[in-house]
Amino acid sequence: MQRVRLRTAISLDGYSAGPGQSLEAPLGVGGMRLHAWVFPLAVFRKMQGMEGGEVDASTPVLERAIANLGASIMGRHMFGGAPGDESWQGWWGTEPPFHCPVFVLTHHPRKPLVLGETTFHFVTDGAEAALARAREAAGPRDVSIAGGAHTAQQYLAMGVVDELLLHVVPTVLGRGEPFFVGERDDLYGLRLVETVAAPNVTHLRFERR
Amino acid sequence: MQRVRLRTAISLDGYSAGPGQSLEAPLGVGGMRLHAWVFPLAVFRKMQGMEGGEVDASTPVLERAIANLGASIMGRHMFGGAPGDESWQGWWGTEPPFHCPVFVLTHHPRKPLVLGETTFHFVTDGAEAALARAREAAGPRDVSIAGGAHTAQQYLAMGVVDELLLHVVPTVLGRGEPFFVGERDDLYGLRLVETVAAPNVTHLRFERR
Repeated sequence: MQRVRLRTAISLDGYSAGPGQSLEAPLGVGGMRLHAWVFPLAVFRKMQGMEGGEVDASTPVLERAIANLGASIMGRHMFGGAPGDESWQGWWGTEPPFHCPVFVLTHHPRKPLVLGETTFHFVTDGAEAALARAREAAGPRDVSIAGGAHTAQQYLAMGVVDELLLHVVPTVLGRGEPFFVGERDDLYGLRLVETVAAPNVTHLRFERR
Repeated sequence: MQRVRLRTAISLDGYSAGPGQSLEAPLGVGGMRLHAWVFPLAVFRKMQGMEGGEVDASTPVLERAIANLGASIMGRHMFGGAPGDESWQGWWGTEPPFHCPVFVLTHHPRKPLVLGETTFHFVTDGAEAALARAREAAGPRDVSIAGGAHTAQQYLAMGVVDELLLHVVPTVLGRGEPFFVGERDDLYGLRLVETVAAPNVTHLRFERR
């Protein structure tokens, strides 16, 4: 059965990106610390077309997280670029790591952008429409909510997220983009089903109750 | 060697207490959710003078956390009561669970308050003086920084905390008292040394580098 999956790295104080996100620091000041655990991993390096790397307790978690994805959805800030700037082709170069259709939530219509195995579709009629298109494009495979936090929040609030994977990183950012917004007592209908301790990160996996 | 130890429960969005702390809700609205994992445990019930209870992966973590403590330090909000109200005897009844000298940081001088095996000393000359007195009182045993968040921050910033134990609870409070304040890139000189996955909580233990 097709599932909607969402994962993010998050600091101990709840931020999924540092402050001052910019072209030079797309994850914000200090935001790279949230991903330090992933860079040495062989499975991550392979995603980027690099050889070598390490294997640790995060390996099966990440392998599972990137498997069976048929489409992704992201917000316009994650795609980047100035609003309406059609020369902008995203952060990821000529072979983005998605390898599937990516639906970008935006207010600016734009023709689909094909880069390697990834096609970016620009959706101007809202989060529900983007999800419907992503579900269709994914076929039997799952849909990934790629981020950022605002987009993740939209889909969590819609109650459509079947799995949430938090990579809890033992660092404090102090300011930046909070991943969770607003008071909740039900965690969006999700419940903790798995905890994996790994070097420099703890993986918490939640599923719909 | 005597150590200074600090532990707290913390939500996924970084709060160690909910909003609106009051006599009726000393942990703030929703703050009890941060402690739901601990209440069923036999080791916790025993601390409160109750029999029965459960044993799970949190048991050895909590047993270790409450062992070998010779003195505690807390802020005046954690002790509670209106400033200068000498009729207030804390939240914990006639046999508080500390069983050791407790040094309360306050601006209001007050004679020591003896309740069962616990004596509360009211320290008006600051955090460093309180620590010196707690170290002396603890003898060969450890000193616990009991909270709240403001007091914890003071001692973390002073660089005197040898061990930090975070009980990371898979819930979101949305607002309340943030445990960590200010941007950090060194986590107060601490490093993650142990992760324990347990039902409804993940324990992260940090020690001085």
